[in-house]
Amino acid sequence: MLSRGYSSIGVAEICARADVRKGSFYHFFDSKQALTIEALDGHWRDQRAAWVSVLGATAPALTRLERLARIQAAVQRQAKDETDAVNGCLFANLALELSSQDQAVQAHLQQIFDEQIQLVHATLQEAAADGTIPADRATRTIARAVVAQLEGMVMFAKLSNDPDVLDDLWTQIQLLIGSGQLTRLQPARGGLTPPQAVASD
Amino acid sequence: MLSRGYSSIGVAEICARADVRKGSFYHFFDSKQALTIEALDGHWRDQRAAWVSVLGATAPALTRLERLARIQAAVQRQAKDETDAVNGCLFANLALELSSQDQAVQAHLQQIFDEQIQLVHATLQEAAADGTIPADRATRTIARAVVAQLEGMVMFAKLSNDPDVLDDLWTQIQLLIGSGQLTRLQPARGGLTPPQAVASD
Repeated sequence: MLSRGYSSIGVAEICARADVRKGSFYHFFDSKQALTIEALDGHWRDQRAAWVSVLGATAPALTRLERLARIQAAVQRQAKDETDAVNGCLFANLALELSSQDQAVQAHLQQIFDEQIQLVHATLQEAAADGTIPADRATRTIARAVVAQLEGMVMFAKLSNDPDVLDDLWTQIQLLIGSGQLTRLQPARGGLTPPQAVASD
Repeated sequence: MLSRGYSSIGVAEICARADVRKGSFYHFFDSKQALTIEALDGHWRDQRAAWVSVLGATAPALTRLERLARIQAAVQRQAKDETDAVNGCLFANLALELSSQDQAVQAHLQQIFDEQIQLVHATLQEAAADGTIPADRATRTIARAVVAQLEGMVMFAKLSNDPDVLDDLWTQIQLLIGSGQLTRLQPARGGLTPPQAVASD
């Protein structure tokens, strides 16, 4: 389902791959939808444990967030090595394939993304408390932008089947959260201002 | 296909909806894949004309880019009003459903996203020439980050069926391109630095 999506796989094929009879399948699951929700929740239980482990480690908040970003590239690189395909993110794949058709799956996906955003948000609040990002970047809106950046970049990695695309993710997240090293303009007041390096003092 | 995805719709249903016979369908298209590519390219021709019109207008480069961002919210709001569903982006929907299964569709999608990134990149270069963003933000990598942010946020709008999610998009793009108004830290050198407003002078 991670590599081929939801609609193109039937219960018969799932049973054949798992070497079980259709009767047994329906003994455990009411439908393909029920199996999908079970698979989603199971995948998130594992991924959530990994996120909590990385974000809850003993290290500065930004270091933990950087590790989380770099792990995304590593996960897709491993998929590429093992299956020759960057499979992307199961949650985003199903969100874009199914969300307007299947409200039960949609509700589970929303819950999962809300938890991802909450985990990032909590880490941003720690970074703001440390003084390593500005306080006005430690919001739920910015945390959602960080997860949106991750998902958009994972889509490009999947589309180009190239995990290296994700090597830029941490730099981009730093721009969103205000800890980046690129130059930034002073806002112009009634005139044009030349580019200026923030890191110059 | 925009609302229900690719795999769940068969040629028979397409023909029924269009009131044509299957024989006629195969007279014009070799396969559902061929129709999909035709639909993708047609959708991009229309969307590209809109992007070129907005980005090529007579206005400062950043104003044009802001219009492009705000139009994304308007497009999804219109879809919601008309169909009660935020359908998201056809290209991303198909990229995540199909890209690892169908190389011909994948190649067309890559080409379309490359053109989107190129259009944004050209506008960033104009903004840098104006002095309204720093020169080191006017790169293809940053342009790709902008499109990734757009696609990630469109996914969240689709998943929550709420076009208002996209009202934050322009602020987030400004952070990526270095023209935003939020505060930003001076990079700390061997110590913690308190948040500081860039706009204070």
